[in-house]
Amino acid sequence: MRREDRDLGGMKTSNRICDLLGIEVPIIQAGMVWCSGWELASAVSAAGGLGILGAGSMYPEVLRDQIQKLQAAAPGKPFAVNVPLLYPAVEEHMKSIVELGVPIVFTSAGNPKTWTAHLHEHGIKVVHVVSSVKFALKAQAAGVDAVVAEGFEAGGHNGREETTTMCLVPAVSDACDVPVIAAGGLHDGRSIVAAMVLGADGVQLGSRFVATPESSAHVAFKDAVVAAGEGFTSLELKSVTPVRLLHNDFARQVIEAQQRGATPDELRTLLGRGRAKQGMFEGDLNEGELEIGQIASMIDGLEPAGDLLRRLAQECRDLAGPRLGGKFEF
Amino acid sequence: MRREDRDLGGMKTSNRICDLLGIEVPIIQAGMVWCSGWELASAVSAAGGLGILGAGSMYPEVLRDQIQKLQAAAPGKPFAVNVPLLYPAVEEHMKSIVELGVPIVFTSAGNPKTWTAHLHEHGIKVVHVVSSVKFALKAQAAGVDAVVAEGFEAGGHNGREETTTMCLVPAVSDACDVPVIAAGGLHDGRSIVAAMVLGADGVQLGSRFVATPESSAHVAFKDAVVAAGEGFTSLELKSVTPVRLLHNDFARQVIEAQQRGATPDELRTLLGRGRAKQGMFEGDLNEGELEIGQIASMIDGLEPAGDLLRRLAQECRDLAGPRLGGKFEF
Repeated sequence: MRREDRDLGGMKTSNRICDLLGIEVPIIQAGMVWCSGWELASAVSAAGGLGILGAGSMYPEVLRDQIQKLQAAAPGKPFAVNVPLLYPAVEEHMKSIVELGVPIVFTSAGNPKTWTAHLHEHGIKVVHVVSSVKFALKAQAAGVDAVVAEGFEAGGHNGREETTTMCLVPAVSDACDVPVIAAGGLHDGRSIVAAMVLGADGVQLGSRFVATPESSAHVAFKDAVVAAGEGFTSLELKSVTPVRLLHNDFARQVIEAQQRGATPDELRTLLGRGRAKQGMFEGDLNEGELEIGQIASMIDGLEPAGDLLRRLAQECRDLAGPRLGGKFEF
Repeated sequence: MRREDRDLGGMKTSNRICDLLGIEVPIIQAGMVWCSGWELASAVSAAGGLGILGAGSMYPEVLRDQIQKLQAAAPGKPFAVNVPLLYPAVEEHMKSIVELGVPIVFTSAGNPKTWTAHLHEHGIKVVHVVSSVKFALKAQAAGVDAVVAEGFEAGGHNGREETTTMCLVPAVSDACDVPVIAAGGLHDGRSIVAAMVLGADGVQLGSRFVATPESSAHVAFKDAVVAAGEGFTSLELKSVTPVRLLHNDFARQVIEAQQRGATPDELRTLLGRGRAKQGMFEGDLNEGELEIGQIASMIDGLEPAGDLLRRLAQECRDLAGPRLGGKFEF
């Protein structure tokens, strides 16, 4: 359904993502590996958005501890846990999520059929991350409550079709009845309004929330994100699992290996284990794997997560009012 | 300068691209090789947008003939000629443009310094197509009147940084003082409004105008564009000149050659000469080179170019009015 079909001229409308997730502002902080711990997620949730813990980089006992710290820091506020469904300890994660009363789960990288019904039985809302209309329809058929449509420009793992946010969001919005959350390339009020004009009901920002004091990324990685310029990222390791990397010594080794025709196995060996932690959490900017979106080039500095969320919401309200209408009086 | 800095709450604003180019609606039809002849360009210009002839696929005598036919079909209406600056007969093209009184030239694929002053001396407006902030600032320094910021999702030749429209348009708009025209991934009112919210003053659509009765593309290519689904295009030939291709036998040969580590020279040999004409103009869907954007997947049928332009403008007006403001009352 097209977004505009649901709205009536000038009337105040309720936002489907705010209603579904119980949040005040339809802005979601992505549950990123090594960057999204309880300090970041609680700051975002306390400010009226949705904070998400990135369980893909957490041992089961770490996730339990993080959930409890988040609940203590933002009592009564909605929050979510992002669970990559290919994670080895997914069953233990899901057990903690149910036991500790997590209200919302974002799933990614796997089949949404596997866990959605189980989570629903426990009253937990489920949102699945997709990179194509095909996967969005599969997720909807699996019963998820909403989908995140994430474009090619996003950081980290990414779809094979390379469909950009500008092309993906209208396509997924037209194809799905469930609410759509846009992700990829979003960093300010302009891009959030643009994504919602394209058909999204809400937005998810990752890279922008890495550059906050509260994110658990190493400060050296945060500084590298702020320093990143145009063309500093690219989508690599396509024959293994496509991932958008910030260019550093490691990324350049990957690119060179690909250019000389390295096999997927050779690339897996080069990647090894623990590189993402080494880069993003431990701050090894040379040999670590640094996952970030294209929009890093537009991020000028660190900003406290709550202030950031409030600023973004205000930019949206300011931009989408009569000022925007005035641009289209042609 | 951010677009919103120029607008005052609720007041009617004049559009810088409409003012600069003398058009009624800030929607431009791209000057595409083999697709953008006088019938398409005159239909767009007659309807209040800007039609562009694609001189990159025209011999000098063909361009002269096309300009004269366009002038006869849309008398007194602004139009432009797109000249790839690496075209071998660029001097003859520029001579015709001056002699025949073409009011606007869009340049691409080359150094904007070379021709801008000459064209300005003859009262001709110059717009340069860029894929990065770096090239946008070079074009501005060369004195161009506006830039087209074209994202990774666009069809045909494309930038090496792979920056998407969502990331490129805000960056170029912030960096430049000249008006910015967004291109790449645009096909309907939603995407046009989104691009203008991101900071653009106007938009350029290519793929959407290929699928019109008036475009000079072969009907078999038009049908292939309408039939194209999600993931049917990709950016290839990156070691030669990056170009977004619709997947067919030829594109698959290119992809296979790249995967086995073909050198740029081997790829140039595979490409050969005349493939774009063979595909897009002569309708050889197997062996021809078919250049189209990602957004082809959203194009459902042919639509007369004038009707299309009027529909797009109306969708923008409808979407950007009070209905849009209502979405942001959170």
